[in-house]
Amino acid sequence: MVQINANYLKLKAGDLVPEIGRRVAAYQAGHPDAKIIRMGIGDVTEPLPAVCVAAMHAAVDDMGRREDFRGYGPEQGYAWLREKIAARDFAARGCAIEADEIFVSDGSKCDTANILDILAPGRVNVIAVTDPVYPVYVDTNVMAGHTGEAREGAEYEGLVYLPTTAENGFAPPLSERRVDIVYLCSPNNPTGAALGRVDLERWVDYARRHETLILFDAAYEAYITDPSLPHSIYEIDGAREVAIEFRSFSKTAGFTGVRCALTVIPKTLTGTAENGERVDLHRLWMRRHTTKFNGVSYITQRAAEAVYSDEGRRQVRETIDFYMGNAKIIRKSLVALGLSVYGGVNAPYVWVKTPGGLTSWEFFDKLLGEAHVVGTPGSGFGQAGEGYFRLSSFNSRENVLEAMARLKEKVRL
Amino acid sequence: MVQINANYLKLKAGDLVPEIGRRVAAYQAGHPDAKIIRMGIGDVTEPLPAVCVAAMHAAVDDMGRREDFRGYGPEQGYAWLREKIAARDFAARGCAIEADEIFVSDGSKCDTANILDILAPGRVNVIAVTDPVYPVYVDTNVMAGHTGEAREGAEYEGLVYLPTTAENGFAPPLSERRVDIVYLCSPNNPTGAALGRVDLERWVDYARRHETLILFDAAYEAYITDPSLPHSIYEIDGAREVAIEFRSFSKTAGFTGVRCALTVIPKTLTGTAENGERVDLHRLWMRRHTTKFNGVSYITQRAAEAVYSDEGRRQVRETIDFYMGNAKIIRKSLVALGLSVYGGVNAPYVWVKTPGGLTSWEFFDKLLGEAHVVGTPGSGFGQAGEGYFRLSSFNSRENVLEAMARLKEKVRL
Repeated sequence: MVQINANYLKLKAGDLVPEIGRRVAAYQAGHPDAKIIRMGIGDVTEPLPAVCVAAMHAAVDDMGRREDFRGYGPEQGYAWLREKIAARDFAARGCAIEADEIFVSDGSKCDTANILDILAPGRVNVIAVTDPVYPVYVDTNVMAGHTGEAREGAEYEGLVYLPTTAENGFAPPLSERRVDIVYLCSPNNPTGAALGRVDLERWVDYARRHETLILFDAAYEAYITDPSLPHSIYEIDGAREVAIEFRSFSKTAGFTGVRCALTVIPKTLTGTAENGERVDLHRLWMRRHTTKFNGVSYITQRAAEAVYSDEGRRQVRETIDFYMGNAKIIRKSLVALGLSVYGGVNAPYVWVKTPGGLTSWEFFDKLLGEAHVVGTPGSGFGQAGEGYFRLSSFNSRENVLEAMARLKEKVRL
Repeated sequence: MVQINANYLKLKAGDLVPEIGRRVAAYQAGHPDAKIIRMGIGDVTEPLPAVCVAAMHAAVDDMGRREDFRGYGPEQGYAWLREKIAARDFAARGCAIEADEIFVSDGSKCDTANILDILAPGRVNVIAVTDPVYPVYVDTNVMAGHTGEAREGAEYEGLVYLPTTAENGFAPPLSERRVDIVYLCSPNNPTGAALGRVDLERWVDYARRHETLILFDAAYEAYITDPSLPHSIYEIDGAREVAIEFRSFSKTAGFTGVRCALTVIPKTLTGTAENGERVDLHRLWMRRHTTKFNGVSYITQRAAEAVYSDEGRRQVRETIDFYMGNAKIIRKSLVALGLSVYGGVNAPYVWVKTPGGLTSWEFFDKLLGEAHVVGTPGSGFGQAGEGYFRLSSFNSRENVLEAMARLKEKVRL
């Protein structure tokens, strides 16, 4: 009988989202009149930019005409899109990234997961993640057999966890144990912290000294408001030798339901085979991407291209400014309540310390019960997230104002 | 330093497509006036059905209005699409497949590759493929470490190859060696052969007796013209206990550039863990699909939904009939030349025996040189494909007629 990948059996049930759902449903059942406002969701709410809508209408028409119809495109994405990405996202910020180092895909979640395909199976590489962490990084390593069993608490044996808390300014400390791979997400989900140039230089330096591969997730770079902060790890000298960068149109241009992202694999990146042979990672990913993937919809790629026009950039900026206006309101309201508030300046997520020693879930129940507001318990992202709570600024202004008014009036801290 | 997945180094260069390109370019360089007709390509040429174009325009408009905007959808696909698939593709043909056993994805190439994620890593399962074979099945097993090295010729050590040739009517023989997994593709790429009910019953019976998992690729089922042939493996009693089925909108509705497919994993399917524990494959795939994938574009899913309307079915039928009209012309022309011709009746591919003992590449060079017509050498799909040649009916009628006229006038057999 066919044998299954037993690494999947190590996975703890992804209990965060279902548990939130269970508690909200139970509360709603007992309080049918409560108008619950959900501020836990990391999904956009505003419509697509008008330039994207127009570009997609035109592309749909192309697909309806024989002479303009497109079948299979290049798996890596059309050149007209990759060239604009190279110019606008990278060259314009001084990063030496060529168009053919960019792979267009259908999502950063997929890419951060699939990248493991080209790395050694089993427990060969030592892998570090931050704590708290975007759960996909951990779960996909468990599935790939890169970890041992789950330990008491929330950690998997074999992974190196780098705690990021208020005490270290949410900047992941360099790993004392030498690691082969480290995931860095900046601006960060869930903490909302963005790494500065010095932080990134320390990591690039570490990676060069220890021959570590940095998997840099910049899905929220468009939310950076501080002009001194890097948007790409390739703004740091030497990063081309150590880092893969993941970017997404999901949060930039509202593509969570449209699906487009990109991964940068510089041709200067290498790994080793068991026999010590140096192997080009770009070549491996090219083989993976062209064998196991068939490209992103032509229509979607036209929408992504539209984001790079001057008008597209203006429209994207406007939507992000709107979300960041929500973030500002949330921050201000929580500070006024006397809470310790982080994030929400260069990221759409506000990360708040729970007051009075409450656990993340106790604070969740308190906000739900007293204000009918739902957020995300920080402990759901890792042990070091315990005692924190995430609020998302992806919402209507009306909901944000109403939620903050309720917090002020109803919640007794 | 990070270690790479050295299984990738076992991959022979995918030399079929580049070698065709090299020979065509060399010929064109020497004969700049030759008007070369490409009949090797497995990609659609006709525009999208009008119902899909209309559905996508409406969906794009939805995405431009705040009240109708859709962000992340269910990773498995929207219920309105999965329910139509269950009703029209399965219930209507007597297959007991529930909507929640259907996973919508962005391509069958991806799914047939990704399914390996939930199966045991390394060389635990014995895996059978047909010969000739769609190369992705083989390459992805090599990447996953399910094989040994490539041997002299074209085979990988550890895989079981089931030759399908004119001698056995292109029906894969039951494996003498017990196998854990077998790939069946019907209607077949590249041979154009479709398995009948009796063939499928033999395989389902084999799979039940040997506890084998059948990976059934039905990407070309819409091309079946013989009403006695099954379109789904679930038309065979007992298949729910042994088979996963892959389907695609690529060739059905011309979605090669739009990207939508589906995989059926019945809840009755199980595998075993190392300790002998029975594990539900549906649950494993659900975990894989929701962790490593973020769903198909809302706009694309609306286009797929439109295929299931009565008018959509009529338009899809019309396009397929057009391609099959090409196939008929190709078959008739080749038969008139005295060649042994297979396929092209229930599949868009015509599979022809090369005359006079020519190898596949010799016949390629002959057609290119004498008629300026490009096809695909059968040997590129496996050793048992040697001495065969594939012509595709995905083309304009004009090109097909011109190519066949040249074959008649210019090629000396």
